[in-house]
Amino acid sequence: MTNEAGHLLIIGGSDAGISAALQAKELQPDLAVTLLLADEYPNLSICGLPYAVGREVTDWHALAHRNLTELTATGIKFQMNMVADQIDTTKREVQAHSRDDSVHKTFHYTKLVVATGAQPKFSGITGVSLATTQQPAGKIRAMHTMADYFGLERDLDSDKVQHVAIIGAGYIGIEMAEALRHRHMDVTIFQRGAEVLSTVDADLGQLLQQKLIEHGVNVLTKTAVSAVEATDVGATIIDVTKQSYHFDLVLVVVGVQPNTKLLVQAGAETGIAGAIKVNEYMQTSLPDIWAAGDLVETKHRLLGTTYLPLGTTAHKQGRIAGYNVAGVTRTFKGSIGTQVLKAFDLIIARTGLLTKEAEQAGFVPFTTTIDVDDHKAYYPGAQKIKIRLTGDQNTGQLLGAQLIGHYGSEVAKRNDVFATAIFNQMKVAEVCDLDLSYSPPVGSPWDAVQLAAQDWERQLYRLKR
Amino acid sequence: MTNEAGHLLIIGGSDAGISAALQAKELQPDLAVTLLLADEYPNLSICGLPYAVGREVTDWHALAHRNLTELTATGIKFQMNMVADQIDTTKREVQAHSRDDSVHKTFHYTKLVVATGAQPKFSGITGVSLATTQQPAGKIRAMHTMADYFGLERDLDSDKVQHVAIIGAGYIGIEMAEALRHRHMDVTIFQRGAEVLSTVDADLGQLLQQKLIEHGVNVLTKTAVSAVEATDVGATIIDVTKQSYHFDLVLVVVGVQPNTKLLVQAGAETGIAGAIKVNEYMQTSLPDIWAAGDLVETKHRLLGTTYLPLGTTAHKQGRIAGYNVAGVTRTFKGSIGTQVLKAFDLIIARTGLLTKEAEQAGFVPFTTTIDVDDHKAYYPGAQKIKIRLTGDQNTGQLLGAQLIGHYGSEVAKRNDVFATAIFNQMKVAEVCDLDLSYSPPVGSPWDAVQLAAQDWERQLYRLKR
Repeated sequence: MTNEAGHLLIIGGSDAGISAALQAKELQPDLAVTLLLADEYPNLSICGLPYAVGREVTDWHALAHRNLTELTATGIKFQMNMVADQIDTTKREVQAHSRDDSVHKTFHYTKLVVATGAQPKFSGITGVSLATTQQPAGKIRAMHTMADYFGLERDLDSDKVQHVAIIGAGYIGIEMAEALRHRHMDVTIFQRGAEVLSTVDADLGQLLQQKLIEHGVNVLTKTAVSAVEATDVGATIIDVTKQSYHFDLVLVVVGVQPNTKLLVQAGAETGIAGAIKVNEYMQTSLPDIWAAGDLVETKHRLLGTTYLPLGTTAHKQGRIAGYNVAGVTRTFKGSIGTQVLKAFDLIIARTGLLTKEAEQAGFVPFTTTIDVDDHKAYYPGAQKIKIRLTGDQNTGQLLGAQLIGHYGSEVAKRNDVFATAIFNQMKVAEVCDLDLSYSPPVGSPWDAVQLAAQDWERQLYRLKR
Repeated sequence: MTNEAGHLLIIGGSDAGISAALQAKELQPDLAVTLLLADEYPNLSICGLPYAVGREVTDWHALAHRNLTELTATGIKFQMNMVADQIDTTKREVQAHSRDDSVHKTFHYTKLVVATGAQPKFSGITGVSLATTQQPAGKIRAMHTMADYFGLERDLDSDKVQHVAIIGAGYIGIEMAEALRHRHMDVTIFQRGAEVLSTVDADLGQLLQQKLIEHGVNVLTKTAVSAVEATDVGATIIDVTKQSYHFDLVLVVVGVQPNTKLLVQAGAETGIAGAIKVNEYMQTSLPDIWAAGDLVETKHRLLGTTYLPLGTTAHKQGRIAGYNVAGVTRTFKGSIGTQVLKAFDLIIARTGLLTKEAEQAGFVPFTTTIDVDDHKAYYPGAQKIKIRLTGDQNTGQLLGAQLIGHYGSEVAKRNDVFATAIFNQMKVAEVCDLDLSYSPPVGSPWDAVQLAAQDWERQLYRLKR
C-alpha cells in the first residue's frame, strides 16, 4: 500500500479533499493517494444544489466537477461510503467503518489531509438537530449534503408539499427561495435580522428583498425562530414572540460550523469558532497532518485570522495542502471575503470589508455609492450597477466593494477587478490608473469600477476641503 | 478674461481635452477655462460611430458623453468651429479662425493644454488623402470625425450605395463591417496581413475572420491596396498585384497619426511616430503647455515609450493634465495596451503583450491557451472562453492575456482582471491566489482566469521537469 514516495491519505471528498489529492498526485505521480469519503458523491458542486432543486439543472449528476471516471483516471483510490472514526497519530493510522457498518478498516498514512468540511448549525433552534434533518420521512431539512438534497426532492415530488419555509436568508436561503419558486412552491423566508443577506449593507439587502417579494417570496424579517416542531403533516415554526406558523416543509439554512471532531479527538489545536488551527502551509499542530476547507481557520488579508467557510477558499486551501504534501512549498495567501449571489435577474457581490467591518478592524473608512452604466448608455441593453466603495480616509487604501446589478452586466467580474485591486493593496485612486477594456457594448472609457473610484475620490476631496 | 487663478486654454474638444477641462475646473472652480474645438461636437464618443451607422444607436446625439448643457454648466467656455492656427509661446497666445473664416481671434493663456488628437493616415495609398475623404460628394471616406460620419450617412441614405469596401481590418474596420452588414450592405474588407485584427495572435484573428465570413462579410487578406481611384459612380481599388475591384463606396480605416502640426510649429519636441514628447505630468517641452491624447507619446508599463492612441488613454492623460494644470501633482501611470472588440456575438480582448512583443521587449515568454467555461457548465447558458496567457519563463511574471468568447460571458471584465494583475506586476501563479467571485451562474470555484493561470503553471512545470 505504501511505496517509496509514501502514502497520502485524505479524509473528505469535497472541494478541499479533492483539490489536495489532485494537486499532490499531479506533482508526485508515484505518490499513493487514498481518499475516504463518507458518501458516494466525490467532487460534487454542492453550490449547485439550489439549481438542481429549481430544475435549471435537470440531472444532479451534472453537478460533479469531475466524474468518477476522470477522478479514478488520476490514480487516486477512492473508498466510498467510508466514515473515518479515529486518527492514531502515533501509529499513523485512521480507523474507519463503512456506512452500513459491514466493514471496519484501518488505513495507514505517511501523510494525512483532513478535509471533513463543515456541518449545518441550527443556532439553538429547539427541535432541530442533524438527526432531525436526516430523518428520511422528516419535514425539517437542511441543505448541505446529497442526502439532504435527495430527501428534499422526495418531499417535493410527493405532491404533499406546497407551503415551504426557509429559515435563514443568507446565500443558500435566498438561492433556495428562488429555486422553490421555480418549482411553484409557496415560499416564506424567515430572517432574524432586519434585512436579508446580512453580509452586505442593509440598503442593498433591501433591494434584494424587494426582488424576492416581486417574485412572490414571503419575507419575514426581524423574526427570530425559537423552535420548529414536527407535526403529522409538516412542521410548525414558533418564533421568539410565540407566534406559530405552519408549513408542509421547513428548510433550515442558518449557517455552518466546522466539522472538527476527528482532529480534535486526535489532539489538534483549535481557534476561532472552534475551527482547526493551521499555518500558511495548511499544516495542523499534529505531525504530518494537514487540514483544508470549511473545518479550518482562514487567513483574511485585511482581518487576520477568521472563520469564513467558502467553496473558493476550500479549493485554494486544498490545493496548497496538496503542494506542500508533495514537497513543493506554497502558502495560502488569504481570503478577502469575496462573494457573489444571483437572485432572479439580480447579481449582488462583495469583496473586502463593509464600512462597519473596516471600522472594527481599525481603519478609518469612507464609503460612497454611485449608480453607473455597465456600458455606454447609447448602446442597447445598458443597465445601471450600484457600486459602493469603502476606502481608508487616511491612507486612501481600497478596503471593500459592494455591487448590485443585473445578470449579464459583468457585475461579478467587476467585483473581481476590485478583489484584484484589494489583493494588491491598491489605493482607491489607483483604480483610475488601471488600463481596462473599453468598447461601447461592454464598458465606458472610464469603466464603471473607475467611475466609482473617481466618485470616492471626489467626495473625499470635497469633505476634506 | 484672466482672473487670479489664471486662464486655462484647451485646444481640442474630444476625450483628452474635455477630461483636462473638467478635472481642472473641478479642482480649481475659479480657473477660467476656454476650450476651442474645430467642429461643434464636443465630448462625442467617436468609438460609438459604428453603432450609429449600424442603427443600433438610432440618434447620433446620444453618442455625446455629456451634452452641451451639462458641459457649459461646469463653467467651461466653448468656442465651437474654431480652428487653432498658431501658438505663440512668448506672448502666450493662440491665433485661431472660425471654420467659415468669418472670424479671426487671439486667445491668451496662462496655461495651455493641446489635445488635437490624431488624424487618419492613408499609408501611401495613392489617390487617398484627407482632402479626398472630406469631399462632400466623394465616394472615398474615412471614419474619424462627425463630418466623416455625416458624409457616410448621406451616401448610405442615397440608395446608390450597395457594395462597400473597407480598407483595413483593425478595430474600426471590423466594427464598420458589422455596422454595414446591419445596414444590409454588401461588404468587402481588405487586409494587408494574413489575418484580420493584427493586434491579436493570428489564430485568434482567424476565429474572428470566420465569424465575419459567417455573417456575410467578404474578407480579402494578404491584399495590399496600392491605390483607390474615384469613378463617376463610386471608386476602384487597385491592389499591389494590379487587380482592380469596383465599389460604390470605399472606407479607408488603416490607422491614425498624431496631429502635431500646431505644437511642432511652436517648437515642441517629438518622439516615436512623430508624436509629441511629454513627461509623466503630461507636460510638453514648452513652458506651461501640456498635451494629452492621440497626439502624444504614451508610456507603456511593459515597453517603455510607445505610440498607442486609444480613447481610454486619452481620457486618463487628459485627466492627469487637468490635475497638474490645477496645481495638484499627479502622474500618468501608463498603458498596457488593453483593448476589446465586439464583433457580432464575439468578444475579443487583449491586455499586456503578445508572445512576439514580449520577446522583442527582452522577456522569455511562455504562452499557453485553454478553453474554459465562463460559468459552471451545468448552469444554463455556459459558453467556452479561449484564454491565452503569456508569462515570463524565468520570473513567472504575467505579461499578457488574450481572450475570445461570447458577448455576455464577462470576457471584457475577465480581461480586466488580467489587466489589473499585470498593472500590479503579479506572477501568473499569483492569479490563482486571488479571491474571486464564485456562484455557479457567473463562474467556477476557480474562475476561468485562474484555470488559465493553473494551466500555464502546469505546462511550464512539465516543460521544465
